[in-house]
Amino acid sequence: MTRTTPAGTPLGDEFHVYDTTLRDGAQREGISYSVTDKLAVARLLDSLGVGFIEGGWPGALPKDTEFFHRAAEGELDLQHAALVAFGSTRRAGATVDEDPQVRALLDSRAPVVTLVAKADRRHIERALRTDVAENCAMVADTVRFLVGAGRRVFVDAEHFFDGYAFDPDTALRVLESAVEAGADVVVLCDTNGGQLPLQLAETVGEVAARTGFRLGIHCQDDTGCAVANSVAAVQAGATHVQCTANGYGERAGNADLFAVVGNLAAKLGMPVLPEGRLEELTRTSHAIAEIANLAPDTHQAYVGQSAFAHKAGLHASAIRVDPELYNHVDPAVVGNDMRVLVTEMAGRASLELKGAELGLDLSSAPDAVTGAVRRVKELEARGWSFEAADASLELLLRREMASVGGADPVEAPFQLESYRVVLDHRSDGEVIAEATVKVHVAGERVIATAEGNGPVNALDAALREALVPHLPWLGSVELADYKVRILTDERGTDAVTRVLVESRDGEDEWTTVGVHANIVEASWLALCDALVHKASREAVPQ
Amino acid sequence: MTRTTPAGTPLGDEFHVYDTTLRDGAQREGISYSVTDKLAVARLLDSLGVGFIEGGWPGALPKDTEFFHRAAEGELDLQHAALVAFGSTRRAGATVDEDPQVRALLDSRAPVVTLVAKADRRHIERALRTDVAENCAMVADTVRFLVGAGRRVFVDAEHFFDGYAFDPDTALRVLESAVEAGADVVVLCDTNGGQLPLQLAETVGEVAARTGFRLGIHCQDDTGCAVANSVAAVQAGATHVQCTANGYGERAGNADLFAVVGNLAAKLGMPVLPEGRLEELTRTSHAIAEIANLAPDTHQAYVGQSAFAHKAGLHASAIRVDPELYNHVDPAVVGNDMRVLVTEMAGRASLELKGAELGLDLSSAPDAVTGAVRRVKELEARGWSFEAADASLELLLRREMASVGGADPVEAPFQLESYRVVLDHRSDGEVIAEATVKVHVAGERVIATAEGNGPVNALDAALREALVPHLPWLGSVELADYKVRILTDERGTDAVTRVLVESRDGEDEWTTVGVHANIVEASWLALCDALVHKASREAVPQ
Repeated sequence: MTRTTPAGTPLGDEFHVYDTTLRDGAQREGISYSVTDKLAVARLLDSLGVGFIEGGWPGALPKDTEFFHRAAEGELDLQHAALVAFGSTRRAGATVDEDPQVRALLDSRAPVVTLVAKADRRHIERALRTDVAENCAMVADTVRFLVGAGRRVFVDAEHFFDGYAFDPDTALRVLESAVEAGADVVVLCDTNGGQLPLQLAETVGEVAARTGFRLGIHCQDDTGCAVANSVAAVQAGATHVQCTANGYGERAGNADLFAVVGNLAAKLGMPVLPEGRLEELTRTSHAIAEIANLAPDTHQAYVGQSAFAHKAGLHASAIRVDPELYNHVDPAVVGNDMRVLVTEMAGRASLELKGAELGLDLSSAPDAVTGAVRRVKELEARGWSFEAADASLELLLRREMASVGGADPVEAPFQLESYRVVLDHRSDGEVIAEATVKVHVAGERVIATAEGNGPVNALDAALREALVPHLPWLGSVELADYKVRILTDERGTDAVTRVLVESRDGEDEWTTVGVHANIVEASWLALCDALVHKASREAVPQ
Repeated sequence: MTRTTPAGTPLGDEFHVYDTTLRDGAQREGISYSVTDKLAVARLLDSLGVGFIEGGWPGALPKDTEFFHRAAEGELDLQHAALVAFGSTRRAGATVDEDPQVRALLDSRAPVVTLVAKADRRHIERALRTDVAENCAMVADTVRFLVGAGRRVFVDAEHFFDGYAFDPDTALRVLESAVEAGADVVVLCDTNGGQLPLQLAETVGEVAARTGFRLGIHCQDDTGCAVANSVAAVQAGATHVQCTANGYGERAGNADLFAVVGNLAAKLGMPVLPEGRLEELTRTSHAIAEIANLAPDTHQAYVGQSAFAHKAGLHASAIRVDPELYNHVDPAVVGNDMRVLVTEMAGRASLELKGAELGLDLSSAPDAVTGAVRRVKELEARGWSFEAADASLELLLRREMASVGGADPVEAPFQLESYRVVLDHRSDGEVIAEATVKVHVAGERVIATAEGNGPVNALDAALREALVPHLPWLGSVELADYKVRILTDERGTDAVTRVLVESRDGEDEWTTVGVHANIVEASWLALCDALVHKASREAVPQ
């Protein structure tokens, strides 16, 4: 049976951590997820233990329709979260069972639906061009229809705070229409993001007292107060909080999931995630930034790389003696480290954990862990990132274990002699990419040339042409996705390029990383790791 | 006579906007100001109209000592702000008139001094290794000494909130020692940044009621609530608020001056800046980011480039009719504008708005709009994105207007014949990128070759080498940033690469976009648009 309530959190259905990274968060300028990206983000959020994942707006955006389809067909096996489809109520003057957008919500097969409803009379009259009675009927009809079809329904009361200040009766009537028709939660939305916490908390408390309804909160960050507003609303009685990973969202963004959860759990003692999951905050934040292809905010509360980094000065030695005097929480609680100290402990712990995930028992090889921690730190200082590149990290760990005799050496299935890539924009306007590789494989020297639609594609093609006759198992490996990030240092000069390559062979998918000033060389490094990873799985004799 | 109170604000000395960008803000990882930088930042802050500028810690940091010296020698002619030197109280067990650090505060010639004092008994005992009585004597002696020397003195009560929660009597004794010795303001500091607004406001209100002292507030952003906490403290009675430009500061940073001032002025109706200065917020924010050599946060509240940028197709036409329904404040109030993003979701309405922003009157050219909408949709379906690429969009709109006779044609300053890029990974391991371009410029055919650290860098270098001798105004254009996104369709095969190139010439910054299966060709398209944009600004005869 499909779940409609969060699983595994101590608070159960009593408190909802509701994530809308994939719907409202996707409105952030510069974000453009593929369906595969959306599935990957959903898996990360589920593994963090959020209660609800709003996946998109089926029927309105083809990509979102496909996301729900693929999720329903088994590509998304959620452990904690219930999947939510977002959509609008029936249109004014139409019937709900004939509305194609409402139909699309059912067709999405999501067990939970969140409907957006206008709660500000000015928006009802001037944007929807209808009246309050019809607006409330639209809400009630649609909620009733979906509840009748077995869905759990929440209602986002858009522009609630502005609407309540302008005309409280209309705002409350909209909430009533939703709840009387069967909505479980009515979500007070600060859609324009203009609220400040003291007033917002007062309004939430007042609405809770006047209605007795189960209230949610959804804040935008236009005053820089979205996190504070969300937490204040919870303190005033809201039991459902809508956030996005890293605060991604339109304009100044939404309330940052990680700061809100950090505050609720670490400051207010509310166990809003399943046990042991809070320490995944930092890793989850960085992995989602990676998929969104945005640089993580180094100064983000709780999860930023600098969030617990003390600039040496006044208190350097005092910090070492008494770290709890200088940190508002223990950084390990949210999976971050205090970088003023050499974070051997934190680094070790997470690598050991990672090793266990990858099936490597590192507890018996302390020297390998020490070496790996050092190597990871060195590489990360030069722009590498292993957050999303599990296969590269596994190779690094295996190499360190081999170097202390704890495992067999990792053999590359081939050795490169050289490559050359030529890109021509010819005078007839045609653009051509051609690559030649010279490699040593299975005791032979092989030269192969291939064309491609770009430099990396040509290089990949030439390499396969050289290798597949000798290593036929490589034939099943294909490049599934390819991401590029330019990393600029503080002065903007010595930029390096980081490439993530996602490969698949019909059974598994794995990701590798390469970093270099030259994008083609960075890609080459990641491509090679991808093939070495495959070789380590095949255990093919060299 | 040197000023010790803010000048020109309607609230006068009744409310202090106190900036510590140059002292506490300089603790941000990655920031390293020269003295000239510090003077430039101080001028910008003064021109914005803040009341106090904390310039640094003379005696502790040689750069700060020099900053105060040069300021006192006439390099800083402040119109609104009083300059503040920051420093510590006399050391434990020493006399104040012999303390070299206290002497340095006098020598700085700053009319105002802010002293830092410990207000948490655990810090007094464990970090300072002294007792509460001596700590209070250190505060009182130093305040009295500086007041006696004609200085206005504020005291930062460090770790106040944690200290007050742990041992309120000690925390209050420290405040009393300061005020009784002549300090004007005691500043309650959330040094570890762990507070949330409801509790913080309660504490501020309680301390105000118990002491009657003039209170200031200083918040760090470790819970993501620094702005909210600062505003809540003001609502609870603080009349002095310490902030930093763009929230720069250690760890997660400080309270962002621009968001705090925006909230106080635009939300709470407090005229905390001189008249007409609020609309300088956005410009000041970006200029200081420039000096700090940090990319502005595009999603920053009030002043970010995206802070008023609407993406949702849902509302594009409604926004045009009724902008005040969708903005929490009029962006012009803080010197920002409402950018409408051109996305697949938006149509005519947003394109016309965009044209108006770019200074193109499209209302008289409906055919150009129809053509541009069609062209944008075509290109976006193939992976182009104009959200961030204003300069490419402007060129597109101008070309459409020219095609219907509504504007002069857009001329490229050169024509490409061909280019070739060669990337070699040699057998000795060295990686080399070399590009050759053949172009026609100013009636001549020019061939140029250059190396670079990657294919795009080499191509850019070769192009400049070919063009600059003929088009010297191109010499000022430089590549400021470069972003790459691989767009995979659902089959994973026909991936295209989208490149965004940000260029600058010392006066302006502009962004262009290129899309192609081949990353180098995509980069080439964006580079060319960047130069055509510059040419259109130069209006150079071809």
